Parts: sequence; structure tokens; C-alpha cells
Amino acid sequence: MEDFRKLGARLSNWGRWDTDGQRDERGTTNLLTPERVAAAARLVRHGKVFDLGIPFGPGGPQPGVGRINPILLVSETGADQERPGAFHFADDWVIMPLQSASQWDGLAHVFYDDLLYNGFPATDVTPHGVRHLSIEHQAKGIMGRGVLIDVAGHRGVDWLQAGEVITPGELDTVLAAQGTSLRGGDIVAVRTGWRRKFLREGDAAAFMSGEPGLGLECCEWLHQHDVAAVCSDNWAIEALPGEVDGEVLPVHMVLIRDMGMTLGEILDFEELAADCAADGVYEFLLSAPPIKFRRALGSPINPLAVK
Amino acid sequence: MEDFRKLGARLSNWGRWDTDGQRDERGTTNLLTPERVAAAARLVRHGKVFDLGIPFGPGGPQPGVGRINPILLVSETGADQERPGAFHFADDWVIMPLQSASQWDGLAHVFYDDLLYNGFPATDVTPHGVRHLSIEHQAKGIMGRGVLIDVAGHRGVDWLQAGEVITPGELDTVLAAQGTSLRGGDIVAVRTGWRRKFLREGDAAAFMSGEPGLGLECCEWLHQHDVAAVCSDNWAIEALPGEVDGEVLPVHMVLIRDMGMTLGEILDFEELAADCAADGVYEFLLSAPPIKFRRALGSPINPLAVK
Amino acid sequence: MEDFRKLGARLSNWGRWDTDGQRDERGTTNLLTPERVAAAARLVRHGKVFDLGIPFGPGGPQPGVGRINPILLVSETGADQERPGAFHFADDWVIMPLQSASQWDGLAHVFYDDLLYNGFPATDVTPHGVRHLSIEHQAKGIMGRGVLIDVAGHRGVDWLQAGEVITPGELDTVLAAQGTSLRGGDIVAVRTGWRRKFLREGDAAAFMSGEPGLGLECCEWLHQHDVAAVCSDNWAIEALPGEVDGEVLPVHMVLIRDMGMTLGEILDFEELAADCAADGVYEFLLSAPPIKFRRALGSPINPLAVK
Amino acid sequence: MEDFRKLGARLSNWGRWDTDGQRDERGTTNLLTPERVAAAARLVRHGKVFDLGIPFGPGGPQPGVGRINPILLVSETGADQERPGAFHFADDWVIMPLQSASQWDGLAHVFYDDLLYNGFPATDVTPHGVRHLSIEHQAKGIMGRGVLIDVAGHRGVDWLQAGEVITPGELDTVLAAQGTSLRGGDIVAVRTGWRRKFLREGDAAAFMSGEPGLGLECCEWLHQHDVAAVCSDNWAIEALPGEVDGEVLPVHMVLIRDMGMTLGEILDFEELAADCAADGVYEFLLSAPPIKFRRALGSPINPLAVK
Repeated sequence: MEDFRKLGARLSNWGRWDTDGQRDERGTTNLLTPERVAAAARLVRHGKVFDLGIPFGPGGPQPGVGRINPILLVSETGADQERPGAFHFADDWVIMPLQSASQWDGLAHVFYDDLLYNGFPATDVTPHGVRHLSIEHQAKGIMGRGVLIDVAGHRGVDWLQAGEVITPGELDTVLAAQGTSLRGGDIVAVRTGWRRKFLREGDAAAFMSGEPGLGLECCEWLHQHDVAAVCSDNWAIEALPGEVDGEVLPVHMVLIRDMGMTLGEILDFEELAADCAADGVYEFLLSAPPIKFRRALGSPINPLAVK
Repeated sequence: MEDFRKLGARLSNWGRWDTDGQRDERGTTNLLTPERVAAAARLVRHGKVFDLGIPFGPGGPQPGVGRINPILLVSETGADQERPGAFHFADDWVIMPLQSASQWDGLAHVFYDDLLYNGFPATDVTPHGVRHLSIEHQAKGIMGRGVLIDVAGHRGVDWLQAGEVITPGELDTVLAAQGTSLRGGDIVAVRTGWRRKFLREGDAAAFMSGEPGLGLECCEWLHQHDVAAVCSDNWAIEALPGEVDGEVLPVHMVLIRDMGMTLGEILDFEELAADCAADGVYEFLLSAPPIKFRRALGSPINPLAVK
Repeated sequence: MEDFRKLGARLSNWGRWDTDGQRDERGTTNLLTPERVAAAARLVRHGKVFDLGIPFGPGGPQPGVGRINPILLVSETGADQERPGAFHFADDWVIMPLQSASQWDGLAHVFYDDLLYNGFPATDVTPHGVRHLSIEHQAKGIMGRGVLIDVAGHRGVDWLQAGEVITPGELDTVLAAQGTSLRGGDIVAVRTGWRRKFLREGDAAAFMSGEPGLGLECCEWLHQHDVAAVCSDNWAIEALPGEVDGEVLPVHMVLIRDMGMTLGEILDFEELAADCAADGVYEFLLSAPPIKFRRALGSPINPLAVK
Repeated sequence: MEDFRKLGARLSNWGRWDTDGQRDERGTTNLLTPERVAAAARLVRHGKVFDLGIPFGPGGPQPGVGRINPILLVSETGADQERPGAFHFADDWVIMPLQSASQWDGLAHVFYDDLLYNGFPATDVTPHGVRHLSIEHQAKGIMGRGVLIDVAGHRGVDWLQAGEVITPGELDTVLAAQGTSLRGGDIVAVRTGWRRKFLREGDAAAFMSGEPGLGLECCEWLHQHDVAAVCSDNWAIEALPGEVDGEVLPVHMVLIRDMGMTLGEILDFEELAADCAADGVYEFLLSAPPIKFRRALGSPINPLAVK
């Protein structure tokens, strides 16, 4: 297998979207041109909406080591409110890692060799947040043509097993079987069934201990197809344990750091996949705006797929 | 002026969307039917995207009393990570009131006379979150036809003054001047300029101390037009100080508690309004999915308007 | 076994420390008179200090359901600080339940039949904190004569088993064997060895799933000895599963709600117990000031025992 | 004025308490020997306790920029608890900078020239906390003889003005007037009246915008007297604006980084000072245990002074 650094260098998008001496901070979502957004909107036919976010709260998949599930604390229930008149209100707070449930990984989330995407120094990540590549740079997105690649559905299994590697060949096979072809600027949604496993078993530790997912060779495939963003129903897009001895999350390193690709993780494609299987249509308008957290490394999301 | 309770009773949507003995928990966003979503998608012509969320972080409009601006804390910068290989990552946490920046008010956010929307008891709001009417019930939305009503633009002012009341008559006048007509299920965006004031002055205390906004009579207007949701560039939709002596936020009480209408607050329409003024088109696809916080009273948002 | 309500009524301290029409909010720590504090200070002979708090952070005993271990997030490392001169600083935040590690239970922490200690209504506990009985009322304490009752040591076991009930008779036996006698206003520290079990096994779920501890009859024993406060190396003072079918934490209910006794939980007596066994002296100055959280239900602590 | 680096080098305690090749992480609190703790306990005569912590909550002195006042959120009020039997409980959470109210500054809180106290590298401060010099190293303290130096009282003013510098000469004068002499290992409490100003005016911004306090020359005075720790009723011990052009908090740099002295900030000496003035006794047992936050840079405290 090609060394991930060589692969990353070969697939690098550094400088590709720099304009007028301004270094790009958005990466592959630059491929979401207005024309493509408009074309994606035309995919909507009957207007059915699928929400791809998972519930944020206790019962989520984060087992409490490192990240935790979002904590909701109610600051106002309506009690103990002394004001004139009838008005009462309820309010709540959240405490959470920005990447604790359905999420976009921002482009500063991962680095190696002291450099972030597009050559920004790793020291741009400070205790106050990141100086460049903040998730805010994705604020005008992420919307475009979504394409579901239902690998688990095509294999006829509830879910792939942890460590199972999805190859470019399988992605092509599934797309062909679905009758779907990719276009530049697509947002690809790879279904491994890993969410279904969690829904069935409710075992957060098992969900987090490994996962099926994309192999390193898929990076090139995503690059060749000019994919704007990739998302999955697992928690790290890529297979875990991974394919590269001694390296953690090499697909993350190539996609985010070298290619500048935003990753959507821990999504729920169950209802969408059933609908796609039923009507044979695996393309849709996907609208997944990140919350505009300043200097942030990622964002919680609830992507909407509309058919 | 009609008593707000009488008005609320007259405009009540309680029971309107109950089905099969199941009490509705979604309210006016039930008006966002698939047909209307599909029609809204057809409004997209050139694919330009406007992000209506404000930045989440220090510098926001919440002055730290009661609610606060979102606090970002970086849990990982890449330092102090001892693992084999090249991989490094950065992570962050947020601590925030769910209604501390751009937000949807959920239907349990406001109540009076011990009842929430659709007759759910106020005791449904517990320290663990709300038992009914959680923002999760809006998860498949909120997407539809958005219509900007640029009151400040029509008046030719940077912003209306705190306490200035917008009437149904003025809404009709602005719409007529814009050449826009409402349809059932629209999401109405009222621009008061209050966001511009904050951007100009940077004075959070001034921003929160009052605001221009809708008057109580607008509730009926919103009801008659079957509006699915209303949002604004102020922080409470309605004028403050309000019109009703001795009552706080009567428009909230009628819209949320009686009509079951979700409110979108602290949005930024500046770029969108400029574009609408330039091309004369004040309608667009609006996609504003809430994050699926369980048992929550609201959600941060970054609505996308697409023309 | 006597019904816990009858027992509570019989041992009730309601009204006992009311003065001048002012209802008491401090409970049994009223027994910590200046004379007794002064006498306790005279117990110090060689000045050796034992810290009885456990570490606050990851690795603590709270398994993440309901309460969690304290979360430390570093807001400043010294990086990204642009100011003139040489100065750099580091700062950190904590997010934690006030009762997530070594702690005082305040007097509003537990109630039944809609009443708190001294008859304050349960509605005094609001989303904004408690109106009465806040841990602030213990601010001038908690300091006095501490007495270790080393039950596990006397039994010659590393720890008692979950559900094992310590009786008044055993407390008397251990004290006699230790050569210690109680005085009014003592702070009693009961060692069950449960902390040792956690230190050995590192199993938070096991630590929290039950515990050895005081039985219901010990309430009367504590009352007869005019004990000012009781603490233990388990997490709830009392045996779990408890002795009373259908009732949760009856010792809590009687001690806190009826007697007004502050409970110290999840302490570490290992080093102290070894020292007491070595020199045969089981009494000491105990200084365990709560942090003055306003309207709070408890406080983290690091009690110091000085011999 | 001597350059702060030269002064720091001259007063350096680096290596002073290293033992058996183990580098010290505790600093000047090493001076709190058992003999001195025992002697301090003997100062207790009538047993009156003074709590020197300020309330933790809204209304505190942190204006919300950088640090904030502690936020208390109630997670359980007793409502919405479905379990058999009578038991109900109330619980709360806190979100706070560890240095947001009364506090010990740990020895890793401040550094310059890339080195912490005792030569530990500044890179020991990581996003996961500090590797050395954590506040945990103060866990067996901080207890000893406290001496109040009531500068404001001696001057006969409510408070000194911001920027007013207290000199060694004035400290000596006040001590002489009080009839107090220092001994090695004392914990010195300097009263500037700045707390009184805040209590009177309630103006957090004014409280934080500057302060009266120790001058740089006091570092040598503290060193000569073998002071174990210094605390004050202001928020940074030292005068602000400071004496050294172009340098921020030089007293912090010398005391913490060079001398290894733990600083106690934002304390309330009002009641204690009145008592000392009344009986002429300015010495007492001081017990101020830090909470054992792992890898932490400081700790909230509620010091008890006992006379």
C-alpha cells in the first residue's frame, strides 16, 4: 500500500482554491458552486425530508472517555420566576464536545508533520481555537447533491464488521447496482450499517471500539470524482482498525489535511436508505449547515436530505 | 387592544394537527408539507447561498446575565498526544445556553396559565428537559419557502428603534412594495435592522435592552397567512418594551403557546437583504435544521437561504 | 425495623437551633461551638496533615450516568498570548456536578413528603438553586474534633461487602477497641474500606453499584452522641442495597431531612487509618471547609485531618 | 528598580526543596512543617471561625471576559423522579474557571522565558492540564499560622486606590503597629480594602480594572521572612497598573515562577479584620485546603481563620 504521505502529496489540494493571494480555508466544499447547488435543488421532486442527525443527549455513542455525550441542563423550568404578568419561560444549556454526535470535522481537526491543510502551521490551533480553517469557513454550506452509497444494503447485511475495508471497487459496484453515477461536487454518504448496529445493540463501547469504513485507496477515488464532502454512519469514515501499521486514521490525514475535505460523521441513514431502496433513487438535495462556532474545529449538524 | 388571552384563544391551533388520537407536538411547521418543500426547492435559480446564522462565540450579543455567549474551550491542540505515528488531532468543547445566539425557540419555551402548546402541562418541563414539544419534533425541518420582509429597508433606515411596533398593515405594505405575496406554509423573515445596529455599535447591552419588532396584532396576520415559522434579526421577534402593560412578551405567548409557532431569533439578514434589494426577489429556499437535542427547549441554527 | 418516618420524627432536630424567630439552616453543625473547635485544635500534637479528599478528574468513581467525574479543560496554556513583556499564564476550567467526588451533602440535598430539613418546603429547590439550606450556611465550618471509626480495620478486612450493614453495636465495639470515646459535636469518620476497593480494582461501576455502610439504627446512635457531621469512604454513608424494602436511601432521609446532618462522602481514609493504627490515636482536628457556592446543594471538599 | 529577572534569580528557590533527586513541585508551602502546623493550632484560643472565601455565583467580580463567575445549574430539583418510595433529591452542577473567585494560584499558573517554577518546561502545561506543579501538590495543605497585615486599616481608609503600591517598609510599619512579628512559615494575608470597595460598589469592572497591592520589592521581603504563602483581598496580590513598564504582573512572575509561592486571591478579610482590630490579635490558625483537581493550575478555596 502506498505510503500515506506520498498518497497525500499526490492528492493534495493545497493551493488549488487560493485566489488573489488569499489562501483557501474551505477545501473541497469549494466544489459546491452555485450551479451545482441549483442543480441539486432540482433533484427535489416530492419534497420528502429525511433528517440524518442522531439525537444529542444521554444514550449517545460516546462512552465518556475523552469526548462525552451532550449534557443538557435546564436552567429555567418556569418555576421561581417572579415577574409581573402571565409569562413563564423555560431555558436549557448544553455542555458538549463539538464532535460528540452528528458532526462535521473541520479542516483543522487533523494534522501531521506540523502542518494543517493548505500549509497552515499546526500552531494555528491554540487554546483559544484555531486561527485558520475554522468551521465558520463552511458557513455558506454545506448544501449540494447528496448521493447515498448503501454498501451494507448492497451486501445484504445489517452492518459490515469492524475493520472491514470498503474499496473503490466496491463503491463503483454499489453505485452501478444502484444505477447512480457521481458528478463533480457531490456529497457522498457511505452507509456501512454501523449506526444500525448501535441502534440494535445500544452498546456505545462496541460502537466506538472499531468500525467498518473506507480504505486508504478511497481517498484517490474521492479525489478523482471531485467529491465535495464525504459522510458516513460510522464515527470516523474510515475502517478501524486501519490498514496502515503504526499509523492512526490515515484516511483522516489524507482527506482532511492533504485534500481539505470536510467529513460528516455519526449520521443516521436508516430511514433514507429504506426510501432509496424502495424507489431506487439514491440522489437528493443535501443541506447540512454547520453552526457558526468561531475558531472551531467542527460543528454539530442535523443534515437534511430532500427527495 | 385585545386581551392576549382572548387573542390566543381565538388564534389557537390546539388540536389542529392531532392525528389518530396522537397529540401534535410540532405546531405550525406541520404546514411545511412535502409539496411546499418541493415548491420551495424550485425557487432556487442560480444557487447562491446566504448563511443567516451569526457567529457563536465571544463578541455575541448576550451580555452574560442569565444567558451567556457560547464558550469554546479547546480540549486538544495536538500537543501532549503520545501515540504511534504521525496523527495529531484538535478538539473543542462548547458550553452554551441553547438560545444564546441564532436559534429556534421550541414550542415548550414559553407558557402561561400552567399550560404549554396544545394543552401539555407546564410540569412537562422538568430539570431533565421537556417531556413533550422538544425541539426534536422539528428535526425533519425546518425547510420551506422563505420570504424576507425588509421593514427597515422599506423605511429607508438602518434600523428601527427599540419599542417600535411593526403592524400587519406595514407588513402588507412592505410585501406589496417588494412585489411579494405570501403563500401558505411560508417561513417569514422580518428584518428590523436590529442586527445591523449591533454590528455597527457592538453594544450587547443596548442590543438586549429592547428592540423593534412585531406587534401583537401581527399574530393574527401570521395566522391568517398560515405562516409556518417566523424569524427576525432581533432577539425576541416582538417589540420591546411591548404594547401590553404588565405583560412580558405577549407575542411569544400567543405565537408559541397558543399557535404553536416556532420562532427564529438573532439572525443576520444583512447580506440577504442587499441581494434581495438588488434583484428584487425576496423569496428563496430556506433550510434551517435544528440540532436534535433531546428533550430540549430550542436549538442553535445556521439557516441557509438559497436563491 | 422502625418505620423511617417514625424514626425521623423521633430524632427530628427541627426547631432545635431556631433563634429569635429565625429558622435554622445549618443543622447539626451548630454543635460545632467555638469551645469545641478550640478543644479540637488542642488535639494537634505533632502537626502531621492527612488530606482526605480524592483526586478530582478522570479516573474518579462516577461512571458517567447522572453525575460524571469532574472535567478539566485548559483555557490558557501560555500559547497564543500576545501582550508586551515576558508574562505568560495558564488557566483552566472545571465542569462538574458539585457532588461528583469528595463532597459535603448540603441540607437541601434530600427530602421526602414535600419538606426539607426544618420544614422548609421542597419548592425551595428551584432551577436557580435552593432558597434555604444552601451549603453557604456551612461556610464557617466545618471544623472540629474528628474521630475515625475504622470498621474495616477492626474487622481485619480490606473492605466490607456491598450491602453489609454497620450497626450501632459495631460502632461501639470498634470505638472501645480503639480506646476512643465520643464527645458532643464530634465529626465521625466511618471507614468501610470501600475506597480501598476502588483503589485496588479501579472499577467505578462496581464502586457505585452498592456499598457497605451505616444501617438505619445508626441514625439514633448519631443523634444520641450529638454528632455534628458524619463522613465515610463510601459514596452514600449508608449500606446499599438498604435495609428498607421499597425505600431508597432511608438513612439519608432521616439524617439530612429530619436531623439536619451534613454528610461527607467519597473520602479517602487510607493513610489516616494506617497512622491511627500505628499510634493508636483515632482523634484529630478535622478541617473541611465547603466552597461557598451560592444557593448550592453541596460542595466539593478536601478535608484535612491534623494529628 | 531592579530588573524582575535579576530579582527573580536572586530570590530563586529552585532546587531548594529537591530531595533525593526528586524535583520539588510544592514550593514555599514546604515551609509548612508539622512543627509549624502544630504551633499554629496552638494559636486557637476561643475557637471563633472566620470564613475568608467569597460567595461563588452570580454577583461575583469576574466581568465575563476571559474568566466568568461560577455558573450553577440545577440538574435535579426533586421533580420528574420516578422511583419507589419517598426519597427525592436535588443536585447541581458548576461550570467555572478554577480561578474565578477565592482561589489558590498553583505554581504552574505563571511562567516566563519558557520555564515554570523549579525549571520545569512551560510545555508541561498542555491542553490536558499540567504535567508538574499541579495544585494537587498542595493537597496536604495549606494550613499554618496566618497573620493579617491590615494595610487599609492602618492607613485608616476603606480601601487603597488602584495602582497604589505597598512597600516592605509599610508592611513592617503595619506589623509593628499591630504588635505582630512574623515567623518562618507564616501565611501572610494583606488587606488592601479592595474587597470592601467591591462590596460597597458592586462594580465588577472597576474591581478588575486595577487594584492596590504589593510592590515588586515585597518579593524580597516575603523571601527574607520565609513566608509560606501570601494572600490578599484583591485579585492579583500586586498593584495594578504595576511598577514595571512593559511587563505584566512582575510580582506574579517572581513569586510564583522564581520563588515557588502559592498566591491566595479574592479573599474577604472584612469580618476577620474587624475582630483583629477589636482584640488586637492578628495571628490565627489558617486552614485553606485546595480541592484536589488533577493536573490543575489552581483551586477554589474557602480559607478558615480560627482564633
